[in-house]
Amino acid sequence: MAILRGTCMFGQSGGPSSVINSSAAGVFIEALEQDCITEVYGAAHGIRGILNEEFFDISKEDIKELMLLKNTPSSALGSVRYKLKDYKVDDTDYKRLLEVFKKYDVRYFFYNGGNDSMDTCNKISKFMAGSGYDCNVIGVPKTIDNDLFGTDHTPGFASAAKYVATTTMEVKLDAGVYDSPMVTVLEVMGRNAGWLTAATKLACHKGLGPELIYLPETAFSIDKFVADVKNVMDNNAGKCLIAVSEGIKSDKGEYIAELFADNLTKDSFGHSQLGGVGQALANLCKETFGCKTRAIEFSLMQRCGAHLASTVDVEEAFIAGRESVKVACAGGTDKMVVFERTYDANGKYVCKFNAMPLELAANTEKTVPAEWIINDGTQISDEFVAYALPLIQGDCKAPLEDGLPRFAKLKKIFVPKK
Amino acid sequence: MAILRGTCMFGQSGGPSSVINSSAAGVFIEALEQDCITEVYGAAHGIRGILNEEFFDISKEDIKELMLLKNTPSSALGSVRYKLKDYKVDDTDYKRLLEVFKKYDVRYFFYNGGNDSMDTCNKISKFMAGSGYDCNVIGVPKTIDNDLFGTDHTPGFASAAKYVATTTMEVKLDAGVYDSPMVTVLEVMGRNAGWLTAATKLACHKGLGPELIYLPETAFSIDKFVADVKNVMDNNAGKCLIAVSEGIKSDKGEYIAELFADNLTKDSFGHSQLGGVGQALANLCKETFGCKTRAIEFSLMQRCGAHLASTVDVEEAFIAGRESVKVACAGGTDKMVVFERTYDANGKYVCKFNAMPLELAANTEKTVPAEWIINDGTQISDEFVAYALPLIQGDCKAPLEDGLPRFAKLKKIFVPKK
Repeated sequence: MAILRGTCMFGQSGGPSSVINSSAAGVFIEALEQDCITEVYGAAHGIRGILNEEFFDISKEDIKELMLLKNTPSSALGSVRYKLKDYKVDDTDYKRLLEVFKKYDVRYFFYNGGNDSMDTCNKISKFMAGSGYDCNVIGVPKTIDNDLFGTDHTPGFASAAKYVATTTMEVKLDAGVYDSPMVTVLEVMGRNAGWLTAATKLACHKGLGPELIYLPETAFSIDKFVADVKNVMDNNAGKCLIAVSEGIKSDKGEYIAELFADNLTKDSFGHSQLGGVGQALANLCKETFGCKTRAIEFSLMQRCGAHLASTVDVEEAFIAGRESVKVACAGGTDKMVVFERTYDANGKYVCKFNAMPLELAANTEKTVPAEWIINDGTQISDEFVAYALPLIQGDCKAPLEDGLPRFAKLKKIFVPKK
Repeated sequence: MAILRGTCMFGQSGGPSSVINSSAAGVFIEALEQDCITEVYGAAHGIRGILNEEFFDISKEDIKELMLLKNTPSSALGSVRYKLKDYKVDDTDYKRLLEVFKKYDVRYFFYNGGNDSMDTCNKISKFMAGSGYDCNVIGVPKTIDNDLFGTDHTPGFASAAKYVATTTMEVKLDAGVYDSPMVTVLEVMGRNAGWLTAATKLACHKGLGPELIYLPETAFSIDKFVADVKNVMDNNAGKCLIAVSEGIKSDKGEYIAELFADNLTKDSFGHSQLGGVGQALANLCKETFGCKTRAIEFSLMQRCGAHLASTVDVEEAFIAGRESVKVACAGGTDKMVVFERTYDANGKYVCKFNAMPLELAANTEKTVPAEWIINDGTQISDEFVAYALPLIQGDCKAPLEDGLPRFAKLKKIFVPKK
């Protein structure tokens, strides 16, 4: 097969992470070095930028700034949540994408995101192939949720896990400071997979973790929760630190957050004051035990806390970007780059990079293994610690300027519309 | 005056900070070196530990662990919120304190905290002096609120400010990632003084700060707020990042958070679902503008985020502890250590340490100067940046073990009760 020559298009999609820009840096640096790639474009707001012919000319950026992307959180090009229809139902968007690809001679397409983004990437890949338009399509994995199938772990997870574990340790020290009963509930992101909530187990490993950890993988019972908390308080001088995934569900599959919301009257502005499941459970504990409570939501901080990124994660995300380009330039297409965990002769963790069919990544969700969830659904086993610890190693953050992070400043020069 | 010889008692009080333990380390290390000090005790849970004769023998601790206190957040000895009555009204507690001081020959008493704690310290100082019991009493300043009178700034503020500024920058990148309107409200601690909320201005200084900043020093109008937000959204592609102090008040002095709470019905558990003023204002924006909103509360993280502590703050807190002991051992009493800002010949910031009467610290609150609050109460002037920047310099955190912080582990051996 002849080597394709043409433009490289890269887009970011879905919720940002601390290291998604590190993958962008990897793609850009590698693409700029590849002879078969004539132009390097970054789509503004993912697929929408392509549909609107809004993309930035990456060759106009300083290499130094591109390298600073490695430690700059969030999606520097802008992200999007745009679901492509099945092209058998409505191929309008696909025809438009093909038109744009042809117009700008896009022969290499890289899309960086989680499950939904891989679904988008997979559909585009299949449509281009079906249209007979030669374009190598590669998915670059990303998600703090760590729920992508077929890869040992996903870029973004480890840094979020490091944020969650470190912050949990600090909060544990703070929440226990008074000599009176206190229930503290930490709410962690994750609708269906509890990987990030499980990361609070790393704080337990250091003696400063939650007594109770609830993942969405296990059905959540409010009555059992109350009994669990009472048991901890009775044996722990009235103190209880709890980590819950935002996505915990009842045995009927209803979100616990929504169960509480049903009990609420709307406020004068017409909104129910749902403060998230953490707040609801903290209120429940206050009512039940009459003690001081506090709900803490790690909110956006857990996915943009780049100042706590792990070096392993930042470097793996960068290499994932580079590898994607290498795979595509070697003729690979319709694939997602995946991580394989290996250990060297000294037992040291070594990450290997492979590629697998996009289709597999697009339609499967990886959850925490049932056997890692122990103590009647209230704790995580040491197997998780062995899994996660190698991934959170090393300190890595943006250089400081005036004591504050110096993030990448891109010029973002639009490619003139044709 | 003869030099006092006897026991040193140290207590921590009020809300913790990232560097309160650094002051504890300073007091302990210095006290262990002073010849006039025979025993070094740390009270469990501040004044309550003294009343209950529960204190730890610090000479039993490893020096290495005491030094690790410099980077360990929260109050390692335990804290307390216990308000001593006026001794002219009820001197029961004071008589008990005097009894304990005599029993353990306490001749040096150090109390580490904010306004309320300095009030406690002041009352004890006056009572001991009035009783004719020789005991040198020194207050060690601490508060993330930075509202202590008579000192240029207070240990704990700078690290909290660095946390707030860094996190605001990261959140700004994340919250702006989609190409749709979005209002994000950051809620920062501070009931009456807006110093910490003003720290979000440091993020503006780096181009990644809130468009609107509201401090409790300025009366807050809900109608004006809505107009302010609309104005920003109209000129900023529908995006608006807002920082509010938890303590913003109406022109009648009512907390805005409570105004919203009044509009709420209780939930089935009997609690109004007040998620804080940030959540209330985010809900209001959702109702008014129909856009996506998010409320983020920095909660305990802003006061225990020791992984983002500033070196300047950690070292100043440590020296404040040492200086307190030096002042007391030189015969000083009834004082609080204060910081004086000076600049060297090269214009470099240099902190000097002085002492001032405890009484002054106890009863005055320092707020943000009115002239630093600009743009009709929605922004902060560059004078704040010049004030705060020297204080947040340098990176300083606990050593890592397994990629996670290694905090101090004290043995906490109780002094046998006499």
